[in-house]
Amino acid sequence: MVKKYKKDDACSYALGGALVVELLKNKPAAARCVYVSPKASGGAAIELARKNGVEIIESEKAFNILSPKENCFVIGVFDKFEQKISGERHHVVLVNPSDCGNLGTIMREVAAFDCADLVIIRPAADPFDPKTVRASMGAVFNIGFKCYNSFDEYIKEFADREVVPFMLNGSPLSKTEFSRNKKYSLTFGNEATGLPESFEKYGAVRIEQSDKLDSLNLSVAAAVALYKLYSS
Amino acid sequence: MVKKYKKDDACSYALGGALVVELLKNKPAAARCVYVSPKASGGAAIELARKNGVEIIESEKAFNILSPKENCFVIGVFDKFEQKISGERHHVVLVNPSDCGNLGTIMREVAAFDCADLVIIRPAADPFDPKTVRASMGAVFNIGFKCYNSFDEYIKEFADREVVPFMLNGSPLSKTEFSRNKKYSLTFGNEATGLPESFEKYGAVRIEQSDKLDSLNLSVAAAVALYKLYSS
Repeated sequence: MVKKYKKDDACSYALGGALVVELLKNKPAAARCVYVSPKASGGAAIELARKNGVEIIESEKAFNILSPKENCFVIGVFDKFEQKISGERHHVVLVNPSDCGNLGTIMREVAAFDCADLVIIRPAADPFDPKTVRASMGAVFNIGFKCYNSFDEYIKEFADREVVPFMLNGSPLSKTEFSRNKKYSLTFGNEATGLPESFEKYGAVRIEQSDKLDSLNLSVAAAVALYKLYSS
Repeated sequence: MVKKYKKDDACSYALGGALVVELLKNKPAAARCVYVSPKASGGAAIELARKNGVEIIESEKAFNILSPKENCFVIGVFDKFEQKISGERHHVVLVNPSDCGNLGTIMREVAAFDCADLVIIRPAADPFDPKTVRASMGAVFNIGFKCYNSFDEYIKEFADREVVPFMLNGSPLSKTEFSRNKKYSLTFGNEATGLPESFEKYGAVRIEQSDKLDSLNLSVAAAVALYKLYSS
């Protein structure tokens, strides 16, 4: 039975051929089935589904329910998979991110500047929401990420690293040197409220910007910081 | 008469109170009038309109036509204004950008890392499209930008500067030093096709990334490069 996505569902959806390809290339065991519109004419996603023995179901109805307005002819249904991060890598830590588009865009950046895993502190946008999956352009299937209920819970598990909180009153990023011998947790707050003051104890860093804007878009800030770490 | 926006119209729309505030703060002379929904209850945009002597029209119909699905209670109608850039500043040059969302996001980055004006080489997404205006979060009213019909037309006018084309086969950005004595034109191609090979003669630069992705999102690439120039 196809139904609209809800946060507590055990499965979610990859809407569109390009996302289904990423699903089947990177997490084939999580794929439950692939819906194909009668309007679809083959394509890489369907071939990959066949090769992986994933059931292919022709259905108009699935598209009406899941993607009524869009140019989408293939849908991948997948089980939410176990999430893992590594203590051997840097982390990007998002504390209470609220927007699926930002979260997905940052997943894509984490895949591009491939030196860090992603940590999401709840309450937070849902990493498996089809909107996040789409904004990630499939990176959700390709990166290490894990959700925690609090920053404390996370940092207890990974104590041996440098927390770098991004805050408006921090010292300039361009003057910050990252050491090759350390593991860093680049930490960003909610889009509207930023990080709580309690993070200042770690030594805050700021991305220099003009006073023409209140603050940078979260995904732009994460990209700038992550590239600096990646290319250091 | 309110009607849906078209590219050749002499005026465009700022949809929502925050955008109307940016319009009235930065380009008050371009404001024709402000539509207010009967559902609106005052706010900074309406106060600013009053202060600037901009006509305020209560109308439900304008919202049905221009913003049927959204939580928008104030609309600013503005004349497209003359665009200007300065030879004394760096430039971000977008060659044939096709997406209003990317164009608006990059306008916002140009406002944030305030060291460059924006050049748009046609054919290109429309800088005055209400979608661009919204993605820019009002930065369109706050930055210098100008459209040209070709890169040649642009570079003839601004010959005395370093063109830095971003291409996948360039040398690493992290090893690139920007000199304080030079004016740079950070140049980016279309989202799907990138820059033509002819730009290689300027000495291409690339933003290092993993092979997990084909290429970076245009607005992420522009942010990373522009921050490096801004903070150099």
